[in-house]
Amino acid sequence: MEEIILASASPRRSELLTQIGIRFRVEKSHGDEIITKTAPGEIVEELALQKAAEVAQRFDAGIILGADTIVWAEGKVLGKPKDRQDAKEMLLLLQNRAHSVFTGVTLIRKRPGEKEIIRTFHRETRVHVHSMSEEEIESYLDTGDPFDKAGSYGIQGPFAAYVDGIEGDYLTVVGLPVSAVYQELRALESGR
Amino acid sequence: MEEIILASASPRRSELLTQIGIRFRVEKSHGDEIITKTAPGEIVEELALQKAAEVAQRFDAGIILGADTIVWAEGKVLGKPKDRQDAKEMLLLLQNRAHSVFTGVTLIRKRPGEKEIIRTFHRETRVHVHSMSEEEIESYLDTGDPFDKAGSYGIQGPFAAYVDGIEGDYLTVVGLPVSAVYQELRALESGR
Repeated sequence: MEEIILASASPRRSELLTQIGIRFRVEKSHGDEIITKTAPGEIVEELALQKAAEVAQRFDAGIILGADTIVWAEGKVLGKPKDRQDAKEMLLLLQNRAHSVFTGVTLIRKRPGEKEIIRTFHRETRVHVHSMSEEEIESYLDTGDPFDKAGSYGIQGPFAAYVDGIEGDYLTVVGLPVSAVYQELRALESGR
Repeated sequence: MEEIILASASPRRSELLTQIGIRFRVEKSHGDEIITKTAPGEIVEELALQKAAEVAQRFDAGIILGADTIVWAEGKVLGKPKDRQDAKEMLLLLQNRAHSVFTGVTLIRKRPGEKEIIRTFHRETRVHVHSMSEEEIESYLDTGDPFDKAGSYGIQGPFAAYVDGIEGDYLTVVGLPVSAVYQELRALESGR
């Protein structure tokens, strides 16, 4: 097994790789994120590639994994909230309808004396959110859960009370499409 | 808030209720589970009702919550595996295709001097499992994860590497459709 390097500071991504038994080290990217695309699937691929490519410069060998997640609702990208009011506005936008979560992934395999291999892909998952009263939104804001998360919610926390269902991969919403990553890692390691 | 009594010994159901901030006590049911139905949705409703009704006899007030989960694949109910060989056969059946997970829920509201209210429902979620090699199945069996779980897998553990996607509520697969339970609890408490 080659060394796997996770180019992400997200504790949730680390947990997900650990959950499926993958060993890795974490190396954060520091560069600015530059968005030149407009389609959500292209945006997350672009950002995942930037993160992985920056960290890959520091290594001669290994598989470098970059990822980026955005929430896409009513034609807008929802990132992490600036403050409580911003989070509240996002939750008002998300409640009582469906939205999409996009996660982009880049894997870069480096081996001494071999040309590097770059694989980039994304997954989209639809999330159906129940209606939420103002009191419920305030109560969720009070938990502190929204403030470090794209779209101002985490599907794996108290917000689960309002998620009626999804179509697609659950872990794409958490931040990393683990089964797709696992299959790509296997393919890269076996040289396919 | 009325006292909520969870009629289930499942640690996963306890974790899910805790995750959305619900306080409850656990009272296990002891009776035999008697299946008279053949449709999977009816089976889980029947078992959820049996568990809740048995525990409800011990209380004069409160909301008693019973639940039951089965995996339904190729027209068969998959319960918890008897042994490693049984688990292996289930995983061979599940890999490389889709199956359904059914969770039934019963809520019984008891108030002194009032007629009790019983609500029973179920949710179905489709789960798409990637192909698994014999080596991957053996490796998953080695983790010990399959042996206390209906269908011989847990979606929230290492098996996530093989789950390509779902249609429906993720937590129905874990063992309790939390958002549906939350909405029903609200309705019961407000008397709707």
